[in-house]
Amino acid sequence: MNFSSKLLEQAVDEFGRLPGIGRKTALRLVLHLLKQSDLEVSRFTQSLNNLKENIKYCSTCFNISDEALCEICQSAKRDKSMICVVEDTRDVMAIENTNQYQGVYHVLGGLISPMDGIGPADLKIEGLIDRLRQGEITEVILALSATMEGDTTIFYLYRKLKEFNVQVSTIARGIAFGGELEYVDEITLGRSIATRVPYERNVG
Amino acid sequence: MNFSSKLLEQAVDEFGRLPGIGRKTALRLVLHLLKQSDLEVSRFTQSLNNLKENIKYCSTCFNISDEALCEICQSAKRDKSMICVVEDTRDVMAIENTNQYQGVYHVLGGLISPMDGIGPADLKIEGLIDRLRQGEITEVILALSATMEGDTTIFYLYRKLKEFNVQVSTIARGIAFGGELEYVDEITLGRSIATRVPYERNVG
Repeated sequence: MNFSSKLLEQAVDEFGRLPGIGRKTALRLVLHLLKQSDLEVSRFTQSLNNLKENIKYCSTCFNISDEALCEICQSAKRDKSMICVVEDTRDVMAIENTNQYQGVYHVLGGLISPMDGIGPADLKIEGLIDRLRQGEITEVILALSATMEGDTTIFYLYRKLKEFNVQVSTIARGIAFGGELEYVDEITLGRSIATRVPYERNVG
Repeated sequence: MNFSSKLLEQAVDEFGRLPGIGRKTALRLVLHLLKQSDLEVSRFTQSLNNLKENIKYCSTCFNISDEALCEICQSAKRDKSMICVVEDTRDVMAIENTNQYQGVYHVLGGLISPMDGIGPADLKIEGLIDRLRQGEITEVILALSATMEGDTTIFYLYRKLKEFNVQVSTIARGIAFGGELEYVDEITLGRSIATRVPYERNVG
């Protein structure tokens, strides 16, 4: 790209570093912002600086929070004996949207990924173990992605959690609701037959 | 979306206002930036503030520039008798990439669009007329999009330019190189037959 301005090129470079944003999209976004008023652009950059400077993580579950203890951990309505372990705050939001879970969470902040140089020490695993040591937990649900990294992390956590007297479960895997059999991959289909459940349980 | 933090929600709101960026993508971008170092985030916001504060537009062609007169208008190698009229700086970059044009540009900063409340007075048309009044221009190429807004703007400009002794042309329309006939829309195909050119010109 032949930029007519170094300032423009620098801004496009920065936007182009964002995941999934190519150079052409970056240019479109920067030119859009350039057309906005000074107030709107400063509100945009300010919201980001504000977030970066003032963001807190819940001292118990490590979810993103505006306070030292997040709303979910503070809530008297949540079942504190059940911990759902997730990768990041997006997973908390996704599970909260289902309205199916009344326990609390633990946000690892990533998954074990030797390829990316992320080991167990980079995740909030010690904090999870601390919570289990307090003895009030009866079940830990491992709600991690069905990927290599997710499976590695589940395996690691399972071995760590074995020494505590808690039920360890993983979220159910199988055919998605609305999924047509012929389009399902072989591994998912094969496993969903092997791990079939009594009809009464699926409609329950 | 159930945000666990107001600060996070505000930043996602701002990113979600960008064209083509939905809420889920906005959240992904914000969480990505949150994982970066303070230095990287401030470089990101600073590049945008810098651009907004210090951006200049060329006093002749109104292209984005770091100086009062852009590189193209300054260059002794460019043919100053030929002006290519475009919508915005992206079109200048696209045409420059072809290496097929040695004249100068005029950036309108938009297209006439009554639906969006954009009239001729909102575009840099007066500046174009001023350049023609100086009498050095022999050809004006209207390189605008083949859309309703582009055609409206071309029609308006054509009537304005008629009173000057200049050749007014528009960029050629037809089947794109590599385009297969069966996939071309009827209007383009029909017009490309009606406006066919001698074989010698197309290979020239």
